[in-house]
Amino acid sequence: MKVHNFNAGPSVLPKEVLKKSAQSVINFNDSGLSLLEISHRSIDFLEIIEKTTLLVKRIMNLNDDYAILFLQGGATLQFSMVPYNLMNQKAAYLDTGFWAHNAIKEAKKFGEVIVLFSGKNKNYTYISKNYHIPCDMDYFHCTSNNTIIGTQMKIFPQTSTPVVCDMSSDILSRKLDFSQFSLIYASAQKNISSAGMTIVIVKKDILGKFKKTIPSYMDYKIHIQNNSILNTPNVFSIYTSMLTLEWIENQGGLSILEEQNQYKAKLLYDEIDKNHLFENKIHKENRSNMNVSFFLKEKNLELEKEFNKICKKENIVGLDGHRYLGGYRASIYNALPLESVQFLIEIMKKFEKKFS
Amino acid sequence: MKVHNFNAGPSVLPKEVLKKSAQSVINFNDSGLSLLEISHRSIDFLEIIEKTTLLVKRIMNLNDDYAILFLQGGATLQFSMVPYNLMNQKAAYLDTGFWAHNAIKEAKKFGEVIVLFSGKNKNYTYISKNYHIPCDMDYFHCTSNNTIIGTQMKIFPQTSTPVVCDMSSDILSRKLDFSQFSLIYASAQKNISSAGMTIVIVKKDILGKFKKTIPSYMDYKIHIQNNSILNTPNVFSIYTSMLTLEWIENQGGLSILEEQNQYKAKLLYDEIDKNHLFENKIHKENRSNMNVSFFLKEKNLELEKEFNKICKKENIVGLDGHRYLGGYRASIYNALPLESVQFLIEIMKKFEKKFS
Repeated sequence: MKVHNFNAGPSVLPKEVLKKSAQSVINFNDSGLSLLEISHRSIDFLEIIEKTTLLVKRIMNLNDDYAILFLQGGATLQFSMVPYNLMNQKAAYLDTGFWAHNAIKEAKKFGEVIVLFSGKNKNYTYISKNYHIPCDMDYFHCTSNNTIIGTQMKIFPQTSTPVVCDMSSDILSRKLDFSQFSLIYASAQKNISSAGMTIVIVKKDILGKFKKTIPSYMDYKIHIQNNSILNTPNVFSIYTSMLTLEWIENQGGLSILEEQNQYKAKLLYDEIDKNHLFENKIHKENRSNMNVSFFLKEKNLELEKEFNKICKKENIVGLDGHRYLGGYRASIYNALPLESVQFLIEIMKKFEKKFS
Repeated sequence: MKVHNFNAGPSVLPKEVLKKSAQSVINFNDSGLSLLEISHRSIDFLEIIEKTTLLVKRIMNLNDDYAILFLQGGATLQFSMVPYNLMNQKAAYLDTGFWAHNAIKEAKKFGEVIVLFSGKNKNYTYISKNYHIPCDMDYFHCTSNNTIIGTQMKIFPQTSTPVVCDMSSDILSRKLDFSQFSLIYASAQKNISSAGMTIVIVKKDILGKFKKTIPSYMDYKIHIQNNSILNTPNVFSIYTSMLTLEWIENQGGLSILEEQNQYKAKLLYDEIDKNHLFENKIHKENRSNMNVSFFLKEKNLELEKEFNKICKKENIVGLDGHRYLGGYRASIYNALPLESVQFLIEIMKKFEKKFS
């Protein structure tokens, strides 16, 4: 059965990754044991973590100034871990969507938060470039992609303040100068792996600048000292990440994926802009290449039901908009085939023809 | 290839659980999607979390006073979450091993810790029953099983103070009156599921007794309000837990498993006690039914090498003692077949015959 999976996360992963990942649950590396049954301190797993670390660095072109951590707790735990480790007194945040907003809420529990820009009063449909980072900030925090409504930061500020970025929904989808960031975090369940794992990429020299009592699990330095096995990590998700990273290299790396992602996104936005029934509400320069939201131009329950029915019949899943917004959202991550985007466009065209 | 898996965690899981779990990674419930690709807010996953919750409550005979949470971060994150939520001023701890010791270290970051008993000066080889819990403690914390050296608490104190218990390495292995605990936590990678998930069982009325600013991910009340999907949980591990819990019910529940575990442990301890080459150093009344540690009576590197060689040849894995202790440790969790214990005993007998 061919299913077109537009889920926002957990979301589509490459078929060959899933096949190898499933095989490892039965018999890992012909060991006669399941991957779920091997010690996280075994040579086999230490090799996995080493290889995964190397792949992240190579694909993102990062040097040894950076540590790569494989943690748990999702971006939500990072919302607290970042200020726990980096906020001495105050930090600057961009409020560019629901998750950015939550990051701010958590940071406020640790110190003073200066919100440099908020898109809230415009329903987060655009991201300003006109903000100034004061020089006395401990760090600057931004969210590269707003999964819910579908905006994406295309440029990042040039600043001597450490830049912290939540890349949960667009990591590994485009080529960037990643060395402009001091800390990047991303939950795995979009472009990386199964849910329950967070990759944290941290420039080691930003840590330990001031004294603070930190719970061990919340302390990046302790995780670095322990090479991500302070305690038992999410072995399965880390292994599956390794498979996805290998797949990314086999595809040709981030430049190629970026081209493919831009092409898929352009096709879909072009259709939405042309189609008389649908619209996208995002400022063009902030449209996300990962999450494409669209709405019926006129609120029409009958038409909505009709479109939902067609999607269901055609095995298009995960197209519902976020529960806070309604409408539709096509999440078109790395592993979503071009054919699925083309198929959705065909459906939208037919729908327009019939009901416009 | 038949492998005898004595790993301490991640560790052996039932074969039928692994088979279904692997199948779900390819095609979950005939949906045409992998379990790794479905939304954690989909009806399918909400059913999994509901069923898993019900199974935990039914198997452990817990009523609706308790909430069941599926979190991330392992027991190590719980070492901080417990005092974050429950410590107003001071709490009482038992220091019965490496992990108990770490729990104490973390709790000290939050308030005053009264250590009622420490087995440290006797290398944690016994657990005292002669301690008194002062009446002004916010809670009492204990670790039911010391995975590293292999001790186990057989009785728990009768007290009006809330009892918090880290059951990571013996949860679901025996029948207890679980209603004597106010909070139980256990990382999944021993008797439950794949690594990267922690089950927390909490009596709701112990929460919110005092005001404290808590990072959202660290706040049990917020997780309860959000039914464990405040953010994306470890979908795969929760599903695999459900399969293990179903397997436990099919085995006949905790009384049956307890009998089996006692029988397996008795066979092995009897052999160690009889065998002229090996010894177990734990006080008999505290011997763990999950982790059986043993050592060569005389330090003899040649003999050690010989035994390791035989184990390797016979596909016995995970028998190395903890890196802090050396020696041997057979972890004989629920899913370890009786045959594996019998096989190990045969090997030990042959070894004795040859080298004694």
